[in-house]
Amino acid sequence: MKVYLVGAGPGDPDLITIKGRKALERADAILYDHLASDRLLDLAPAHAERIYVGKKRAVHEVSQEEIDAMMIERARAGKTVVRLKGGDPFIFGRGGEEIEALAAAGIPFEIVPGVTTPLGIAAYTGVPLTHREHTSAVTFVTGHNVEAIDWSKIGAADTLVLFMGLVNFPEIAKELIKQGRSSGTPAMAVRWATRPDQQTIAGTLENLASRIEQAGLRPPATIVIGEVVALRDRFNWFEKLPLFGHRIIVTRDRRQSPMLAEPLEALGAEILFVPVIEIADAAEASSLEQAIQNLHTYDWLIFTSANGVRHFVEALDRSRRDLRSLRAKLCANCTCA
Amino acid sequence: MKVYLVGAGPGDPDLITIKGRKALERADAILYDHLASDRLLDLAPAHAERIYVGKKRAVHEVSQEEIDAMMIERARAGKTVVRLKGGDPFIFGRGGEEIEALAAAGIPFEIVPGVTTPLGIAAYTGVPLTHREHTSAVTFVTGHNVEAIDWSKIGAADTLVLFMGLVNFPEIAKELIKQGRSSGTPAMAVRWATRPDQQTIAGTLENLASRIEQAGLRPPATIVIGEVVALRDRFNWFEKLPLFGHRIIVTRDRRQSPMLAEPLEALGAEILFVPVIEIADAAEASSLEQAIQNLHTYDWLIFTSANGVRHFVEALDRSRRDLRSLRAKLCANCTCA
Repeated sequence: MKVYLVGAGPGDPDLITIKGRKALERADAILYDHLASDRLLDLAPAHAERIYVGKKRAVHEVSQEEIDAMMIERARAGKTVVRLKGGDPFIFGRGGEEIEALAAAGIPFEIVPGVTTPLGIAAYTGVPLTHREHTSAVTFVTGHNVEAIDWSKIGAADTLVLFMGLVNFPEIAKELIKQGRSSGTPAMAVRWATRPDQQTIAGTLENLASRIEQAGLRPPATIVIGEVVALRDRFNWFEKLPLFGHRIIVTRDRRQSPMLAEPLEALGAEILFVPVIEIADAAEASSLEQAIQNLHTYDWLIFTSANGVRHFVEALDRSRRDLRSLRAKLCANCTCA
Repeated sequence: MKVYLVGAGPGDPDLITIKGRKALERADAILYDHLASDRLLDLAPAHAERIYVGKKRAVHEVSQEEIDAMMIERARAGKTVVRLKGGDPFIFGRGGEEIEALAAAGIPFEIVPGVTTPLGIAAYTGVPLTHREHTSAVTFVTGHNVEAIDWSKIGAADTLVLFMGLVNFPEIAKELIKQGRSSGTPAMAVRWATRPDQQTIAGTLENLASRIEQAGLRPPATIVIGEVVALRDRFNWFEKLPLFGHRIIVTRDRRQSPMLAEPLEALGAEILFVPVIEIADAAEASSLEQAIQNLHTYDWLIFTSANGVRHFVEALDRSRRDLRSLRAKLCANCTCA
């Protein structure tokens, strides 16, 4: 069939595109990195194969060749394959190498762009990457090989974003100052951007490295350097949400509690779903089935939960009857909607 | 209430984020630019005020102060306001200036990032903006004020994206070549990226300007310069879709024909919806209402269209009855789902 190379966005699962979500909803197989949210994987049909090909350091790494081979094999078997990548596939995402393999194998593909991490950081820290008064250019650069970059030129961009630059930041900062960038230039490092556990360390080119060390911030993190970073103090709406930094446990599953979870998430809380009961069909279904056979004899039907409504309607469907068989009055409390 | 500064993405309405769509769905007022798709505006509730504040050249331009004032006034009146901007609000989108006004007025706001246009161009032309073999940095720069930029430094980035650079491109290209960039560097200009009418002119730093002139390409367009542009010939899946460049007229409205429109759009076609009939409630509704009053006397209900089903169920709801009042057998053809 086809392979969809999909950008998952910067972290918040609601920052995937509609098109990306549609691709997940019809996937037969998903190959995902360790940055992908469980909520995105939940969008795929139950039958879809979910394959972790993450690249966490120190964990066995699936090689690029293995990933390519898995995609090609499944596409050739007629499956719809989604390759889900954090951020955008074409900004330091190796997307180019993956479509090269697909094109060589004659596999049709589509690319669904995503919100690249710096845009998520900008929005969720209140730091515009460009601003008429401060910047006319923004540069994205990878910081994992310091020697490969000509910092005398790259460093001149008003706003500079370092991907994978946390480990080498002390060296890069020195290099930028040596090339003429002011040591007082505002800079910040952001980890888990756009998620409820977003962590921001702010400072200057001169002192950010030691603040990162003090705070014990670890990769993956992205660093933004430039005058615009100073705007954060005024525009940082996300970390100022009333429930930011709070974890709330909800004892139902996500599907059953959107009306509870979504407003709390909108207030900045991190919601952990720990369902304490599991709702399942009765192993002995005959009593419900028998009741449905005699539906016309009942005067009242009383539902005590949304689960009751759902299972009743499903059993009704299976019985090849429909609501026309119902003479009874209905009673339910308002959470049964 | 609150103002949501939402990135609409590069053009394809399915490239807005889920979070952006949710904001539109609860908007009381939307202030939008001329790049916003009608399909995005249709996501808002019927009561929502839709205010065009676009910035097409030569059309009366709404000033930034007027836009700010309109947002503030509506938020103070308790409304949920969406400021919908093409691409991402914080990449050459003046988002910084708009939240400055909101912050000064004490209006709460949130920022929803979007897929910035260069990422849409990359995905829909098959040109990775970064690639391990070709690039370690990508720079976004505005081309509308050539003198304000130090091209000797900016031009060094492996991949260079010019926003609003079409008019000044001949001058910028000369400047980049003068600064040492090879005249054979691949470059392309893209207009209406990610839309079915996407138009791409490809060439080199040396000849792209004359090709743009020959083709009569006009603003708005974005220009990508760098070795990665050469990959387009092999990876350009979008413009090779079987129906790309074809316009198909559908004589129903979008809501009624998703099963027809979506697969055609997936094949690259541009769908124009020109409903030749309008479905409305009967001005004289009494015959339907009377029939519903006597529902128990009917032996058969025959539906000839999905509209018939919808209007029947709506009238049934209004009558404070439900399907339990129905004794009749049902008949419908398969398009009535």
